[in-house]
Amino acid sequence: MTHRATIDFLLHDWLHADALCDRERHTDHSRETFDAVLDLSEKLANEQFAPLNRLIDIHEPEFDGVAVKLPAETPVALKAFGEAGLVGASKDVELGGMQLPTVVEIASMSFFYKASVGLAAYPMLTRGNANTIVAHGTPTQIETFAKPGLEGRTFGTMCLSEPQAGSSLSDINTRAVPDVNGDGSGTDWAQDPLGQRYRLKGNKMWISGGEHEMGRYRLKGNKMWISGGEHEMGENIVHLVLAKIPGEDGKPVPGVKGISLFIVPRKLVKADGSISDQRNDVALAGLNHKLGYRGTVNTLLNFGEGKFPVNGQPGAVGYLIGKQGEGLKCMFTLMNEARIGVGLGATMLGYAGYEASLNYAKERPQGRHMGAGGKDHSAPQIPIIEHTDVKRMLLMQKAVVEGGLALGLLCSQLVDDELTGSSEQGENARLLLELLTPIAKSWPSEWAQEANSQAIQILGGYGYTRDFPVEQYWRDNRLNMIHEGTHGIQGLDLLGRKVVMNGGKALSVLAERISQTIQKAGHVPGLAEHGTALAQALQKVGATTKAAWSTGVPEEALANATPYLQAFGHTVLAWIWLELALAAKAAQAEGEWDQRPEGPGFLQGKLAAADYFFAYELPKIDAWLGVVSRRDLTCAKAQADWF
Amino acid sequence: MTHRATIDFLLHDWLHADALCDRERHTDHSRETFDAVLDLSEKLANEQFAPLNRLIDIHEPEFDGVAVKLPAETPVALKAFGEAGLVGASKDVELGGMQLPTVVEIASMSFFYKASVGLAAYPMLTRGNANTIVAHGTPTQIETFAKPGLEGRTFGTMCLSEPQAGSSLSDINTRAVPDVNGDGSGTDWAQDPLGQRYRLKGNKMWISGGEHEMGRYRLKGNKMWISGGEHEMGENIVHLVLAKIPGEDGKPVPGVKGISLFIVPRKLVKADGSISDQRNDVALAGLNHKLGYRGTVNTLLNFGEGKFPVNGQPGAVGYLIGKQGEGLKCMFTLMNEARIGVGLGATMLGYAGYEASLNYAKERPQGRHMGAGGKDHSAPQIPIIEHTDVKRMLLMQKAVVEGGLALGLLCSQLVDDELTGSSEQGENARLLLELLTPIAKSWPSEWAQEANSQAIQILGGYGYTRDFPVEQYWRDNRLNMIHEGTHGIQGLDLLGRKVVMNGGKALSVLAERISQTIQKAGHVPGLAEHGTALAQALQKVGATTKAAWSTGVPEEALANATPYLQAFGHTVLAWIWLELALAAKAAQAEGEWDQRPEGPGFLQGKLAAADYFFAYELPKIDAWLGVVSRRDLTCAKAQADWF
Repeated sequence: MTHRATIDFLLHDWLHADALCDRERHTDHSRETFDAVLDLSEKLANEQFAPLNRLIDIHEPEFDGVAVKLPAETPVALKAFGEAGLVGASKDVELGGMQLPTVVEIASMSFFYKASVGLAAYPMLTRGNANTIVAHGTPTQIETFAKPGLEGRTFGTMCLSEPQAGSSLSDINTRAVPDVNGDGSGTDWAQDPLGQRYRLKGNKMWISGGEHEMGRYRLKGNKMWISGGEHEMGENIVHLVLAKIPGEDGKPVPGVKGISLFIVPRKLVKADGSISDQRNDVALAGLNHKLGYRGTVNTLLNFGEGKFPVNGQPGAVGYLIGKQGEGLKCMFTLMNEARIGVGLGATMLGYAGYEASLNYAKERPQGRHMGAGGKDHSAPQIPIIEHTDVKRMLLMQKAVVEGGLALGLLCSQLVDDELTGSSEQGENARLLLELLTPIAKSWPSEWAQEANSQAIQILGGYGYTRDFPVEQYWRDNRLNMIHEGTHGIQGLDLLGRKVVMNGGKALSVLAERISQTIQKAGHVPGLAEHGTALAQALQKVGATTKAAWSTGVPEEALANATPYLQAFGHTVLAWIWLELALAAKAAQAEGEWDQRPEGPGFLQGKLAAADYFFAYELPKIDAWLGVVSRRDLTCAKAQADWF
Repeated sequence: MTHRATIDFLLHDWLHADALCDRERHTDHSRETFDAVLDLSEKLANEQFAPLNRLIDIHEPEFDGVAVKLPAETPVALKAFGEAGLVGASKDVELGGMQLPTVVEIASMSFFYKASVGLAAYPMLTRGNANTIVAHGTPTQIETFAKPGLEGRTFGTMCLSEPQAGSSLSDINTRAVPDVNGDGSGTDWAQDPLGQRYRLKGNKMWISGGEHEMGRYRLKGNKMWISGGEHEMGENIVHLVLAKIPGEDGKPVPGVKGISLFIVPRKLVKADGSISDQRNDVALAGLNHKLGYRGTVNTLLNFGEGKFPVNGQPGAVGYLIGKQGEGLKCMFTLMNEARIGVGLGATMLGYAGYEASLNYAKERPQGRHMGAGGKDHSAPQIPIIEHTDVKRMLLMQKAVVEGGLALGLLCSQLVDDELTGSSEQGENARLLLELLTPIAKSWPSEWAQEANSQAIQILGGYGYTRDFPVEQYWRDNRLNMIHEGTHGIQGLDLLGRKVVMNGGKALSVLAERISQTIQKAGHVPGLAEHGTALAQALQKVGATTKAAWSTGVPEEALANATPYLQAFGHTVLAWIWLELALAAKAAQAEGEWDQRPEGPGFLQGKLAAADYFFAYELPKIDAWLGVVSRRDLTCAKAQADWF
C-alpha cells in the first residue's frame, strides 16, 4: 500500500522536513534517521499492533472487582512500543529522548493509529501527559513523573470531565485541599520534594515558612470518561487531574479561573522518586462499555472516597502543577496535543478503511461495463474498482485520509517551528497552530468517519459483517467527534475565539499562506482553476466571519458555529490539496517517483484526489456559510415544546 | 412523545386519508377504525417490541449445528403481531385481511419499526412475500403459501443475492430444473396442485400433455444475505427464490431475462396444502454476524445440496411463480415494497434516536446562557436543549424523521391510489411511485443514519456507550444503504431509468405536483420564499437531468448518479416540507390542534422544521448537481493504480 510512500511524499516533497536537520536541536538527524524511525514504526505497527485490533474489540476490558482485565497481548504490544523509545522520541536527550522533530514523531505515530487506535491511545495519552509535566512541572516532577512515561515505563491520563460536567469544565466539583493535618504521620509536607517548594506569586494558599506551607494536596471527586484510567500495565499510572482549591472563604472559585492542575499517581511515589507498592486513594468506580474504541479502557474514577486511605485518611494525594488557578491553561498543553492526536487517529482509522476497501475493490468481481449495445452478459464480471461510483467512494476516502494526514503533519511541523524556528516563524506557527487545532481535531473526526462509511459501502453486505474490519473502524471512529471537545465546542472555539483573537491575526496569517499557494498555482496548468476556486472560498470565509460578528452579539455570531467549522475545514483542506497538487506537479517534473515501485500512478493519484476535492467537496461550503453569514436564527429561536 | 400526533397530522391534516373510506374497498372503515388500528399498534409495539430491542442485539442468533437459536422472547412478540391481524391488514377479507388502506397499514408499521426494526423485519418480509404470491401466484399457491403468511402462521423471505452476485443479479448461478425423473416415487408431477397446471405461452419447458408436463422444479444453488432464512418460528418458512431454468441447450439464458421466480418452502407442503414434517432440501450454510440489525437472523442458504434429500434425491423442491423468465419482474413486487419498507425502517430508527436524544436534551443540565457580561457561573446549569447547537441537531433530526415518515406515508397512499383510485389517479400514482421509490429507499437510509449520529452527538460520551440506545440505532441503520439495492444502485435506477422512462412522464407528473404546491405557498405569508427556493431547486433538477443526458452517453450521464440521487432526494423532501408547512398553517387557522395535549407548539415545530430544511438542507443540492450537470469525469477517469 501507499501509506509509507505518502508519508515520504508529504514529509519530503511537500514539507521538506529534511531542512529541520539544519536546526541545532536536530543536527544528529538526517533523512536516514527519519527513515529508520519510520521503517521501525511501520514494522512494529504491522507486527505488534495490527494483529490485535479485532481481538481488543471482542475482548473489551473487564473489571472483576479487584483488577481491570485486558487481553494479555495488550501490555506486550505497548511494551514493545515503549522499549523502541517511541513515546519520548521528540524529547530532549537528557529526558531519554532522541530529539526527533515532532513531524517525524507524528508520522511514525500514524502507523500505530492505523494499525490499532485502541492500543495507540495509551502512548498518545502518556506522551501528552508527560509533555504537560515537562512544560509546567518542577524539575523533580519532571524527573519523577514525566521521564518514566517517556521511557514507556509508566502510563498517563488526563482527568477533566465529571459525570455532571462534560463540556462545561467550570462546573467540576473535584476539590483539592492542603494536606496539612490529620495524616497522623507527622511528616513535614512542606519538605515533600514532589510538591512545589518555591513561592508562587499571587498564590494565596502559599505562605512561605508559615504553617500552611506544604507540598501536597488531597483530592476528592469523581472523574468520568478517563481513558487508560485503571489497569495493571506498567509501573504506575500518572493522572493529571483538574480540581478546585477552595478559597479563603472555603468555597471554590466559580468558573474556570478556580481550576488548578494536579499530578495524582495511582501508586504513591516516595520522596526519592521510587514507586511504592501503596495505592493512592484513586478507585475504579466503573468501566464504560463503548460502541467502539474498546481496546482503550475507559473509566469512571473516584478520587479520595477512602477506598485506599493514605496515612489513615481518605483523599487522593496530589501535587499542584503549574500555578494555582491556571489548571486549564496547563491542561491545554495536553489538550491541544490530544486534539491533534484525535484528529490524526480519526484520519488513520479512515486510512485503514480506505486500504481495506481498496483491496476489496480490486479483488471483488461484480457487474460489467456498459457497452454501446448494453452489457455483454457473456463476458466475465469486472473488479468493482472499475465502476465509476466505486471510484468515487475511493477518491472520497483518499482525499479525506491523505488530506487529513497532511493536515496532521502540517500541524506537527508547526509545533517544530514554534520550538526551533526563527522568532517570526515561531510566532506565526503558534498563531496558525491555535487556529488550525479545532480543524485538525474536527475535520477528520467528521469526514474520516464518513470515509469509513464509504468503505463499508464498497464492501456492501460483507462490509456490514464483523468478518471484515471496516465496521470496527467506523465504530471506533465515532468517538472522535465527541472526546477532547465535541464538534460543537470546536466550532465555538474557532468562530468565538480563534478567528477573532489578536484582532484576527491568526486568520490573517493563514490567509497569507493560502494566498501564496494560490499565487503559485496560478502559473501551473491544471491547477490555476483550483487556485481561483480556493481564492473565492477564502474570500467567502473571510466575509462570512465578518458578517457573523457584524452585530457583535455572540448569540447571533455563534448560532451557526458548527456549519462555520465545517466550511472552514473544507477550505483549509482545499488549500492543503492545492499544496499537495503543486508538490505532485513538481515531483512529476523531477521524475524521481518514476523510479519508485509505486510508479507514475502515485503522483497522478494525488492530482486526481485534488481534482476530486475541488469538484465534489469544496462547493459544499456555500450551503454551510449561508446560514452563518445571514446569522440564521431558526435553531436559536426554536423552543423546547416545538420538538 | 409526538409520534402518534405526527401520524395523525400526516394522515388527516395532510393526506386526508379519511377520504379513502369513500372508496368501495374501504367502506367498512372510518377515522375510528384507523385510530383503533393505530392505538393497538402503538400499544403492541411499546409493550411487545420495544422492551426486546437491546436483548435481541446482545443475544444475536446462534446456530448450534442443528437449529438456529433466537431469544425465546422473539417468537412471542412476532406471534402477538401476527395474531393481531397486522401482517395482512390491508389484504382482501377473503384472504383474512381487513381491507385497511395501505397508508394506514404502513402508519401502523411505523410504531414497530421504531420499537425494534430487528423484529419488525420479519413481518415486513413476510407481508411482501405473501403480496408477491398474491400478485403472481395461482389460486392454489395463494391459498397455500400466501394466506398462512398473512395470517401470521408462516414466515417469508426473499432470496436474490448469491455470494458471487450481489448487485449483479444477472450473474446468479442457482439453477432450477424440471423435477421429471429420478425421484423414485412414480408420482406424476404434472398433477402436483402446487405447481402451475395451465399452459404458459412461450414457455418452452411447458408442453401440455407431454412427458415434460410438470408442476415443480428442483433448485440447486447458494443464496446469500437471506434475512429470516432459517429459524424455528411459525409453521413454515416460504422462500421466494430467483433461479435460472436452463434453455434447450442446457445452458441458462444469460442476463436477467433468464431469471425465474420460485416458491421454495422450508418444509414440504402436501398436495392438500397441509405442511408436512419433512424438510425440503434447503440447508443453513452459515449465519452472518452483523454490525447491527442483529435481531433479524441473516443467513447463507444452500439450496439442493442434498442435506435434506427429497424422495432420495438432492434438489430443493420449488414451484414456478409467474412466467418463466419474468422472475425479476415478479420479484420487483416484493422489492419495491421492501424498498419503501427499508426507507421507513431507516426513518423510524432515526425517529427512535430523535426521541431518545430529545428526552436527554430536556433533562441533562450542562453549561449556561451567555449573558451581556459573559456567563454567570453562580447560576445553575441549563438543560442542554437550550443550547442553539443542540437545537440545531434536534431540528435536523426532526426534519429528517418527520419528513421521512411523510414520504413513506405518501408512497403508501400512492399504492392505495394505484389500487383503488380513478384510472387517471392510478396511472399517475404508478408513475410517481416508480419515480419516488429510489428516493423513499435511499434518502432515509442516508439521512436518518446521519440523524442517528446527531442523536449520539447530543448524548456525548453517554451516547457512545451501550448504556443508551442511540448507538444501536446508528448501527442498525447502517444496513439500510446496503440491502434492497445499494445507494449506488438506487442512483442508477433513478437517473438511468426512472426520470427518463416514458419520455420523462414520471418526472413531469412529479414536477406538476410540486408546482401546485409552490403555487399554493405563494399566497401564504412565511412560505412564499420557500416556494421560490423550491421552484429554483426543481428547475435545477430538471436542467441537470437534461444536461446529464445531453451527450446521450450513459457513462457520462450516470458518472454522478449518486450525487444526483442526493440532490433529487433533498428536492423531494423540500417539497414534502413545504406541503407539511402548508398543512400546519391550515391547521393553525382551524385551531383544532390547540385542544390537543401537544399544544400550539406542535404546529410551530412543523413550521420550524420546514424552515430548517429550507435554510440548512436544500442549499446543499448545488454542490451535488454541479458535478452531474457538467458530467464531471474525475471519478470515471481515475485508474486503479492511482489509488
